[in-house]
Amino acid sequence: MDDGPLMEKLVEKVLERSKRAIAKAITLVENHPDECELFIKKIFPHTGHALVVGITGPPGSGKSTLVNNLAIEFRKRGKTVGIIAVDPTSPFSGGALLGDRIRMDELSGDPDVFIRSMGSRGSLGGLSRATMDAIRVLDASGFDLVLVETVGAGQSEVEIVRTAHTTIVIGIPGTGDAVQAIKAGILEIADIYVVNKSDRPGAEEIAKELRLLLTLDPHSKDEGRWQVPVIPTTNLPPIISGIQKLADTILKHELFLNDPKNAQFAFEQEKIRRKNEIHEIIKVEIFENMLTSLIGKQEWEKLLQEVISKKTDPYSAARSIMDPLFR
Amino acid sequence: MDDGPLMEKLVEKVLERSKRAIAKAITLVENHPDECELFIKKIFPHTGHALVVGITGPPGSGKSTLVNNLAIEFRKRGKTVGIIAVDPTSPFSGGALLGDRIRMDELSGDPDVFIRSMGSRGSLGGLSRATMDAIRVLDASGFDLVLVETVGAGQSEVEIVRTAHTTIVIGIPGTGDAVQAIKAGILEIADIYVVNKSDRPGAEEIAKELRLLLTLDPHSKDEGRWQVPVIPTTNLPPIISGIQKLADTILKHELFLNDPKNAQFAFEQEKIRRKNEIHEIIKVEIFENMLTSLIGKQEWEKLLQEVISKKTDPYSAARSIMDPLFR
Repeated sequence: MDDGPLMEKLVEKVLERSKRAIAKAITLVENHPDECELFIKKIFPHTGHALVVGITGPPGSGKSTLVNNLAIEFRKRGKTVGIIAVDPTSPFSGGALLGDRIRMDELSGDPDVFIRSMGSRGSLGGLSRATMDAIRVLDASGFDLVLVETVGAGQSEVEIVRTAHTTIVIGIPGTGDAVQAIKAGILEIADIYVVNKSDRPGAEEIAKELRLLLTLDPHSKDEGRWQVPVIPTTNLPPIISGIQKLADTILKHELFLNDPKNAQFAFEQEKIRRKNEIHEIIKVEIFENMLTSLIGKQEWEKLLQEVISKKTDPYSAARSIMDPLFR
Repeated sequence: MDDGPLMEKLVEKVLERSKRAIAKAITLVENHPDECELFIKKIFPHTGHALVVGITGPPGSGKSTLVNNLAIEFRKRGKTVGIIAVDPTSPFSGGALLGDRIRMDELSGDPDVFIRSMGSRGSLGGLSRATMDAIRVLDASGFDLVLVETVGAGQSEVEIVRTAHTTIVIGIPGTGDAVQAIKAGILEIADIYVVNKSDRPGAEEIAKELRLLLTLDPHSKDEGRWQVPVIPTTNLPPIISGIQKLADTILKHELFLNDPKNAQFAFEQEKIRRKNEIHEIIKVEIFENMLTSLIGKQEWEKLLQEVISKKTDPYSAARSIMDPLFR
């Protein structure tokens, strides 16, 4: 696809929220970094209206079901919902996962819902960058909410979640390891904390513990600061609870961000997000293009031989590659 | 610390396997990237003897206990063992985690065991790079085995695990989400697959399923290729089982890598590891130093304002920063 009538047509159809065009556009941002750049430039002026909600938690914490129920709740309230399920460990992309199939039944017949999964193999040029651009596609299409679900809580997941306006961290009772990991990061990234599977024993203790931990943050009582709530949820029918409250809280956080009193805070947040995004683009560009222009295959081979035989160390090797950049 | 007698002394003490010096050296690689570079250059010629074993799996899969039991087993066989527990979501570093405290009782009085945890906050200049250098410190100190445990299965964890000679992926019965994530990546990164908590229902089915999946890899029957085994383990006393077999299998994999028949394969693997490491160093260097030299604080401010007001898009912004590099 070129900067011709085909791309113009795709832009037009995406803005009209055609599901087929949206799917095609996301495949474009995943697999064709060069065309993606031009495409994003074209839709960029139409973005900035969706509330982007990031949802993260360890495997087995029931993220997909929670996101599913949340989408149903928002549909009841007349909101349009885009969902991106990011799994960096999955080679699959495009919606072939089991979780998606379950969702299909209830949600995907709905013209105001779009669901897409993104895995590592489908993303030339970085999953974080591709995810940001996929969010932008759904945003330009006019979805009120874009829910971005990421598996795990590793560094790259945190990066993905940082592109969101509102970040939800999920924990479950009975997994010491998980709770420990989440506790450690919670004060930094969570806007809302969910204790899912809260019908299990130990849920109340965890919620209590988390609330206590949140008050330990020295800034938690700063005037005008968002107070991170802890919301217990259950997702297994017939006991689905906490979802309405969670939806209420997400919209409350949106109001908070849009409150003129918090304009400076929201602006600073937006700056961090855009700076991260630009960093990400530069990183990809440097590793896809610049590095190959700095060192050829044969030179790599020679350098690696030297490192393996211990004639040179990795730092000196890296410096020798970077030298031309600093000259 | 300078390139003076203090650093020379630290190098000397690390090579003598002084625990205090090792702890100090790891703090150096975490927090002082500049001195770290010089330090690594000095110890680099003394590395390359340890077998580095990466162990990864979702939170709650019992990694820490498994690594603990594995260390005890290797000590019984007269091997010295270094352990690095990497948790990208943890701000803690240096061994303050609960898991470590439990380990302390049994292992840390032993002069031939060294345990260290690494979190995100302690690592200026990238956790992956710091982890690689910490492995190198333990390697130079003469530990026979370095066990690197990482929480989760995200992209950065996979990177960390890729620095290992032998990669163990852990799964547990009863968590559909986790198994699904692991299945997707298993054929690529696992040298050994462990089904932990195999006293739980469903363990046999998972082991069977995994073995079937492994045979589906078209290369699995290639002559001379390592056959990925699936090993069930349990870690709760009194039923600790599978650990001896796991230790046997790790040593069998070491023999496989050292077999002259597989020299070419092992060499190619080593090249990939060193190339990744050099990439990592360059990446950090570019973002710590180069980017700040390309764009000042005020220019950033101006550029971000333009992106937020939609006068320019993130790709064009990134290009304008990178322009001087390509001139």
